[in-house]
Amino acid sequence: MRLATLKRGGRDGTLVAVARDGTRVAPVTGFPTLQSALDTWDAAQDALAAATEAAETGEAVAAEDFAAPLPRAWQWLDGSAFPTHGDLMQTAFNLPPIETTKPLMYQGMSHRFIAPTDDVALPSEADGIDFEGEFGVVTGDVPMGVSATDALDHIRLIVLINDWSLRTLAPAEMKTGFGWVQAKPACSAAPFAVTPDELGTAWADGRVCLPLTVEVDGTWFGHPSGRAMAYGFHELVAHAAATRDLPAGTIIGSGTVSNAEHATVGSTCISERRAIEMIAGGKPETGFLRFGTRVAMRAGPFGAIDQRVVRA
Amino acid sequence: MRLATLKRGGRDGTLVAVARDGTRVAPVTGFPTLQSALDTWDAAQDALAAATEAAETGEAVAAEDFAAPLPRAWQWLDGSAFPTHGDLMQTAFNLPPIETTKPLMYQGMSHRFIAPTDDVALPSEADGIDFEGEFGVVTGDVPMGVSATDALDHIRLIVLINDWSLRTLAPAEMKTGFGWVQAKPACSAAPFAVTPDELGTAWADGRVCLPLTVEVDGTWFGHPSGRAMAYGFHELVAHAAATRDLPAGTIIGSGTVSNAEHATVGSTCISERRAIEMIAGGKPETGFLRFGTRVAMRAGPFGAIDQRVVRA
Repeated sequence: MRLATLKRGGRDGTLVAVARDGTRVAPVTGFPTLQSALDTWDAAQDALAAATEAAETGEAVAAEDFAAPLPRAWQWLDGSAFPTHGDLMQTAFNLPPIETTKPLMYQGMSHRFIAPTDDVALPSEADGIDFEGEFGVVTGDVPMGVSATDALDHIRLIVLINDWSLRTLAPAEMKTGFGWVQAKPACSAAPFAVTPDELGTAWADGRVCLPLTVEVDGTWFGHPSGRAMAYGFHELVAHAAATRDLPAGTIIGSGTVSNAEHATVGSTCISERRAIEMIAGGKPETGFLRFGTRVAMRAGPFGAIDQRVVRA
Repeated sequence: MRLATLKRGGRDGTLVAVARDGTRVAPVTGFPTLQSALDTWDAAQDALAAATEAAETGEAVAAEDFAAPLPRAWQWLDGSAFPTHGDLMQTAFNLPPIETTKPLMYQGMSHRFIAPTDDVALPSEADGIDFEGEFGVVTGDVPMGVSATDALDHIRLIVLINDWSLRTLAPAEMKTGFGWVQAKPACSAAPFAVTPDELGTAWADGRVCLPLTVEVDGTWFGHPSGRAMAYGFHELVAHAAATRDLPAGTIIGSGTVSNAEHATVGSTCISERRAIEMIAGGKPETGFLRFGTRVAMRAGPFGAIDQRVVRA
């Protein structure tokens, strides 16, 4: 099943099921928003199945009609589960490995996820504007202390996210130990939130085993696979829920998708490419984004993020 | 004006205005929840004023009927604006001062604020259960890039918060640079959210110039003043909004209230008292909380938090 949210309706948009071709949709009777369906997921299954069938002959919509699947969410926790990304960053900046025996995770802003084709307004090119291609999962209600094994059953949907980052602001915030506020503005999301079964064998061990393709102004930037996570999403959910209940609609991110084969598969953020350039040649070659640049991301059945960065 | 939320109603409770004596309340016509009033604050003013008058002869309620003013919020950003607290912690643990030219702030979980008299369920005494007494402000919609001066006009309400912290888990998370997830479970809030004018001269330069009194099992623990912030709340709001819009209902915290005169006014968290003990005598004397302990906080017109810590 693929679900999406149209911009029409209130701040949370309007939930629809999506046809196989990704252009036709149908509303979900009794569940006006994706959050309302997540709040009572089991009760929503019949309506979601009926809407999925109706979508095949449903209303045709344009890419611009889609909001993010959850235009706002009660919680966004972002991991950093691809070890290659961390290793490259620490090596390039001559820093020791981050000491931890647990998954890395920070609490991010969740009150806004930008629609897949909307402009992304940021205050200054001097902030080092960068993208990060990530997979994420949307949970149901998760009880505090859940095991990783049980956590798998609380994963309702899988999403594709661009976690916009302001690199000039990030190191100073990271050095305080408090995590990021100014360096992490709103994320963008691809239009389709997908049930795990929809991925078939590409959903394995709590990982999305699909390439995530990034293009900048139409030029290939990378297509590493989501398979290479050191921790699966079920382990990230269990980590997040160690001392708190998670509400339905919590989104948990994988962190920047990154593979050891970066020489051939590229990267999903500029910062990592710059790190590779620094390690190879002593200095970064690729600049951060300028206003007017387009960034596109796509993977499997999630549809495309395709946006322009503009001055706020 | 003092506003509160009764537990009755949906997940966001029911908005009421509160009488001068703090026990009588009246509903707010047209605004079922505090979030709905914050979303259209100007339009809500007549209804809030009418409800405030009606509250004087309104329904009598018990302390247990109150939820947190916002039982869940779209965003919770917590500062650390009392320099004495930071200085004591760094000195006790032989750490260099945190390097920053900006306010310290982290993104915390916002999907749950615990009602002022509800039990606080946590998984383990071994996690180092601690409280943190803080003031906070609730904003209206704040545009990205707002100046500190203009930010003052976006502060709608002031609140009193207990930011529960798990000290055994905190240093490892802080060391990653990613901020806290497991070390920062849900906060509690006092029942009454108060308009700035209600504080009179105690609201000055974006600071709450009132003592915040903490008791543990009925014994005084501290009563430092909120006046001693290195940055006012307007500066914290501007810091938070540098690269993002803030949605109405954003809560921004002061961090642990702490004064240079701690020898006489005490502290608002155990961790700071332990730091003082370490500096004075080489080792901490005060233990973290055990299950069954009661923690109470009160200040000015905010009403009381009075809760028991229990095993989850």
